Parts: sequence; C-alpha cells; structure tokens
Amino acid sequence: MTKGFTLWFTGLSGAGKTTIAEIVRVELEGRGRKVEWLDGDEVREHLSKGLGFSKEDRDTNIDRIGWVASKLTRHGAAVIVSAISPYAAARDKARAMVEEHGAFVEVFVDASVDECARRDVKGLYEKAFRGEIKEFTGVSDPYEIPVNPQILIESEHEEPAESAQRIVALLESRALIPAAVTA
Amino acid sequence: MTKGFTLWFTGLSGAGKTTIAEIVRVELEGRGRKVEWLDGDEVREHLSKGLGFSKEDRDTNIDRIGWVASKLTRHGAAVIVSAISPYAAARDKARAMVEEHGAFVEVFVDASVDECARRDVKGLYEKAFRGEIKEFTGVSDPYEIPVNPQILIESEHEEPAESAQRIVALLESRALIPAAVTA
Repeated sequence: MTKGFTLWFTGLSGAGKTTIAEIVRVELEGRGRKVEWLDGDEVREHLSKGLGFSKEDRDTNIDRIGWVASKLTRHGAAVIVSAISPYAAARDKARAMVEEHGAFVEVFVDASVDECARRDVKGLYEKAFRGEIKEFTGVSDPYEIPVNPQILIESEHEEPAESAQRIVALLESRALIPAAVTA
Repeated sequence: MTKGFTLWFTGLSGAGKTTIAEIVRVELEGRGRKVEWLDGDEVREHLSKGLGFSKEDRDTNIDRIGWVASKLTRHGAAVIVSAISPYAAARDKARAMVEEHGAFVEVFVDASVDECARRDVKGLYEKAFRGEIKEFTGVSDPYEIPVNPQILIESEHEEPAESAQRIVALLESRALIPAAVTA
C-alpha cells in the first residue's frame, strides 16, 4: 500500500496556494499517485454550507477538512489541502488527526497583504479595505503565521514552479513519493 | 490497488445495522481490507454538528457522508456506512457519487417498528410514541423503503451472523474482496 500523506497549504487569499498546489498535483499524478485535492472553498460547498467566517466557524470548517484528510491519508491517498486556515490551533488539530495515519506536511505560502491585493483580480481585498467585506483574513481578520512549517514559500521572491519543485523534493526525501523516473 | 466500494446500511434505528456491520467489518479486515466505517451518529459529530432532523438537514447529512464515502472509495477503501438514511433520493444521490469511483452496495436492514421498539434499551421509541421526540423515523418521520436494494435483510427472521455472511458472499461474488482463505 502506498503511503498516505497530507500536504497542507496555508496562507492568505492570493498568496499562491492554488497555483503551486496545481503544479504539485500534476507532478504527483505523473508519478502514479492518486491525489485528492481538498480546496477550502470547495469543501465549504460540500461539508460546511451555512458556516460563516467567525473564528468558531472557520475552526469547524478546518476541523472537517482535517477529519476527511486524515481518513484519506489512512487509505494511502496523496491529499492536498489548500485553505487559508488562519488559526494555528486549528491547523495543529488537523495535523494531529492526520498524523495518526501518515505524514502531515505544512506548506506556508507567504506573501504580503499588499502583494496579495495587487494580484487580486476579483477585487476582494479592495472591498475588504473599504470595509465592505467583514472578517477578511489579513485585513480585518487575523492570520496566525506558522511558526515551524515544513516548507516556507515566499511567493514574492520565488517562481511557482520552483516552489513546487522544493515541495516535491521534500516528499521524495521523506520517501513519501517515488523518485522521478529519468530517461 | 484494491477496489474501493461502499456498503451502505439503511434502516430504522434498532433494525440491526450496527450489529451486522460489525460482523462484516471483522470479516473484511480478516481478509486484509482496510475498512472505514462512517456511522451516521459519528458523522453528525464530526461533519454535521448543528444539523437537526428536518428532511433538509437529514439530506445534507447524508450528502456529506456520500461525498466522503465517494472520495474514500476512490482511494480503495472498503467503506461501511450505517445510517438510517430515510430518504430514497438522498441515498440515490450518495450512490451516484460513489459509483463515479467504485461499487455502491445498498443493504436494507428491515424490521418492524414494534420489533425495533422492543429491542430499544434506550427507550427512544417509547419517547417517540409519547411525542417527546419529534421527527423520529418510523414513528413521526417517514422512512422510504429501498425499492431495489442489493441485499434485503429481514432481521426478525435471520441471525446477524447469517446476514453478514450473505453480504460478504455478495462482495466476493462481485470480486470486490478476495475469497476467504481455507486452511
């Protein structure tokens, strides 16, 4: 049975979680791994409809993602989670659940609020700056920086492909995925 | 990779779902399968806290179980679901999600309300009869009988071990599990 693990991307909206995760996903599938991608917004649709963005509701949402990630990890899946997951305690709880069955690799995708706002084509940050969106992480809601992530990505100073490559190399070094086949 | 499937037990509270599922679980694990048991009450605790027992909330709960079962099935798990799951449409939706990735085997555990009440050590049926519990399936809330389940168990007329044996035989016949090793 292949080793299950959960690769957990945390960071502000617009920091680059999805972009990097997508490159990693393709690479993992290319190495024969079955990937399950739990995206924060998608999970809200399926598991957490009705929850809002208070601390309590955010924690509940992350708890559900962690619970599902843990079960999938147990069955050998390569789980990718991309979710702002702003609270350290909630991330740690997810880690504890996953580590009952496999590895939990925390990837902190860091970028300044200004840079995230600059990239934001939907204009959500502008609305948050104007106070039109309440509880917006990084603007009007806290983001607790991971103290000791397995991978730190400063997305203002590194290309996504390079970040993805570092993640894949870590997974390889921990024997969670097979080495790339070189022709 | 082993074939994932979901064995879905539906029926009234007290019909015998858990008892039979437990025997099946042991048998599957004995044959080397990794089992994930999603119990309706446990899932409510983890994924559906705050949901009640209206049709809408019950459907949402079953939808979440189906979504998780589907993902686990994709990764080769032997998923056991035990949940009253009283509405046919919700069960069918779960089936559709699971069948994207593997087999869905519906097991209808049938017993009369009187028999379920007789077995009920917690006195829930008595309370429901007295109107102290609202929306109690089989008493004050509907149960839509599966029209065409893969397995029909009349638990008033069959021992749990025998029912479990029939389920295991079906899984075997569909090559979802290996045959038992005989010494």
